[in-house]
Amino acid sequence: MATHKLLLLPGDGIGTEVMAEVSRLIDWLNKAGIASFETEHGLVGGAAYDADKVAITDATMALAQASDAVIFGAVGGPKWDGVPYDARPEAGLLRLRKDLGLFANLRPAVCYPALADSSSLKRDVVEGLDIMIVRELTGGVYFGEPKTITDLGNGQKRAVDTQVYDTYEIERIGRVAFDLARKRRNKVTSMEKRNVMKTGVLWNEVITAVHDREYKDVQLDHQLADSGGMNLVKWPKQFDVIVTDNLFGDMLSDIAAMLTGSLGMLPSASLGEVDAKTGKRKSMYEPVHGSAPDIAGKGMANPVAMLASFGMALRYSLDMGALADKLDEAIAAVLAKGLRTADIKSEGTTVISTSQMGEAIVTEL
Amino acid sequence: MATHKLLLLPGDGIGTEVMAEVSRLIDWLNKAGIASFETEHGLVGGAAYDADKVAITDATMALAQASDAVIFGAVGGPKWDGVPYDARPEAGLLRLRKDLGLFANLRPAVCYPALADSSSLKRDVVEGLDIMIVRELTGGVYFGEPKTITDLGNGQKRAVDTQVYDTYEIERIGRVAFDLARKRRNKVTSMEKRNVMKTGVLWNEVITAVHDREYKDVQLDHQLADSGGMNLVKWPKQFDVIVTDNLFGDMLSDIAAMLTGSLGMLPSASLGEVDAKTGKRKSMYEPVHGSAPDIAGKGMANPVAMLASFGMALRYSLDMGALADKLDEAIAAVLAKGLRTADIKSEGTTVISTSQMGEAIVTEL
Ligand SMILES: CC(C)[C@H](C(=O)O)[C@@H](O)C(=O)O
Ligand SMILES: CC(C)[C@H](C(=O)O)[C@@H](O)C(=O)O
Repeated sequence: MATHKLLLLPGDGIGTEVMAEVSRLIDWLNKAGIASFETEHGLVGGAAYDADKVAITDATMALAQASDAVIFGAVGGPKWDGVPYDARPEAGLLRLRKDLGLFANLRPAVCYPALADSSSLKRDVVEGLDIMIVRELTGGVYFGEPKTITDLGNGQKRAVDTQVYDTYEIERIGRVAFDLARKRRNKVTSMEKRNVMKTGVLWNEVITAVHDREYKDVQLDHQLADSGGMNLVKWPKQFDVIVTDNLFGDMLSDIAAMLTGSLGMLPSASLGEVDAKTGKRKSMYEPVHGSAPDIAGKGMANPVAMLASFGMALRYSLDMGALADKLDEAIAAVLAKGLRTADIKSEGTTVISTSQMGEAIVTEL
Repeated sequence: MATHKLLLLPGDGIGTEVMAEVSRLIDWLNKAGIASFETEHGLVGGAAYDADKVAITDATMALAQASDAVIFGAVGGPKWDGVPYDARPEAGLLRLRKDLGLFANLRPAVCYPALADSSSLKRDVVEGLDIMIVRELTGGVYFGEPKTITDLGNGQKRAVDTQVYDTYEIERIGRVAFDLARKRRNKVTSMEKRNVMKTGVLWNEVITAVHDREYKDVQLDHQLADSGGMNLVKWPKQFDVIVTDNLFGDMLSDIAAMLTGSLGMLPSASLGEVDAKTGKRKSMYEPVHGSAPDIAGKGMANPVAMLASFGMALRYSLDMGALADKLDEAIAAVLAKGLRTADIKSEGTTVISTSQMGEAIVTEL
């Protein structure tokens, strides 16, 4: 049995609580002889700042580079509002994405039948929803230079951010989207603001070219990001795979996640390029939800998004698809029994804590 | 009675159809001696391109500068997908905003009780919703330089957009938001991505400073634009006034509009700075919906957003608030009679055409 090296980065807030349930699952898988994991632990975000005055240390980055997959909790919180910009909690997450080259962020928005009523949208609008948002993650306004604040004198400052995209960056994220669509409902919707942004013009042109050259069998549509956002709210089931840039992807994937009514259930994967020699790719897995400082430390957090993210690691990085399926089934079975964390409770269900939910899922497995 | 000079710019698609109903209303107001309007007409967008190969001519811009208010329909459509970037339909709209200095875009998202069921959101989530989105309109990534596509050779291109904000631009839009909040429920939520963008850092800092200096009586909250978008979908009634930048405002106001279930009902105003000498400000009024090429020419478009935009002109630019109230009442009365255009039809209502709706509203007045 192959041994897999995992780096666990719980981060801040509920990150540590939900990561504890991943540890529980890993321990059990190791003990039961189902798999063999070697785990390292590291600090990221506010936790790293408190210890080392940086959002992630070089040593932790080296562990990340050496791991088969990084399992990430969440970062940030009001406690670190005043820290220097370069050491803010999010800088740790951004460095991981950039240095590991994780350009492809896969964010499924799936509406669990048992939870359709917790959505603010009407049941028929979201029931059965299954969208995959493919967000470009290492380019755009997140990393472009200049990114500065300059003092102009007279009490005036000027802030600048720069959105940059090169052809190859759009091509490779396009391919990820088209490949995924082929395994799903064969439809890709590309979103940008080509009527206002030059990066939108290039995005549209390159996605179209990749499609026409390599993926003629996949249906491709283009929508402006603002009307795309509207269409997500109006009738989300029109979408299969959505491919979009880093900033629009940030907004649109959060909105898509909220439509499902179960943010606490949604995992994500961030993937690098496949190494031509080893056939491997760098990867990181994290829940879509954030560090939720308001409920941190109360044992209320929903660990399902974190456990499902670990499931995505099994599937995409560790070649254990069958085990991932079993994990998904265990999660569904626990929900079917009416067990819920507070965020997804409804009439007739039993509210349990973070650790009880983790335990129930492991027991089910 | 003062005579007001209006410039009507119907634009493309359903823009011409809904503007015809404004003309009907203006004619009637003139004939009935209720008001005195002098109207000029101009081309903008694709219509201007077809005639003059530009998105708006200098002559039309001069008329806009000389008018008391510009009434704008909508621009764009697939017909002009291939025109040069600088002559694309949207360039006309952007030139109007920039050259007239219309930095403050007011976009109310109001859920009409009679239409709450046409929302994709649950009735209790949107019923009674009344949000005002204040969007910065002449800065940010829409106008920052460089904005270029460069050929790098080897089949690679690089596209760049630049988001720029200066202190004074954030201060003045902040004041618009705080002033509006004082006349409403006294609460402003500012949205940016300060965890990723330097413009977000400056935005947050300047809005906070304006608040602490001049508007301590108004409640101010800050949200990251992505979680703000989520909160809009989850529980929009938590908001009163939202103030945000040009690009986030584009996305968030469209989403807020869609929540109401009646995009075809929503007006907007774009305002310049008050001239210290004349006390006047440049202004433009337009529906939130676009040119809707798919239904153009069929007499199906809902003219209410356009008529309500004219109502905003009466209120904000022409000092005829009482008439604006009457127009709003006339619109409500027509809806109460069960008359609907196709976009807002529901069981038990009567579907009528664009011109029938315009006529019904004028008759009611
Ligand atoms: C925490 C923050 C930097 C991050 C982002 O903006 O990408 C988050 O919102 C996300 O979507 O993963
Ligand atoms: C037509 C387009 C340029 C415009 C914008 O992006 O501002 C529109 O979406 C709007 O919101 O008024």
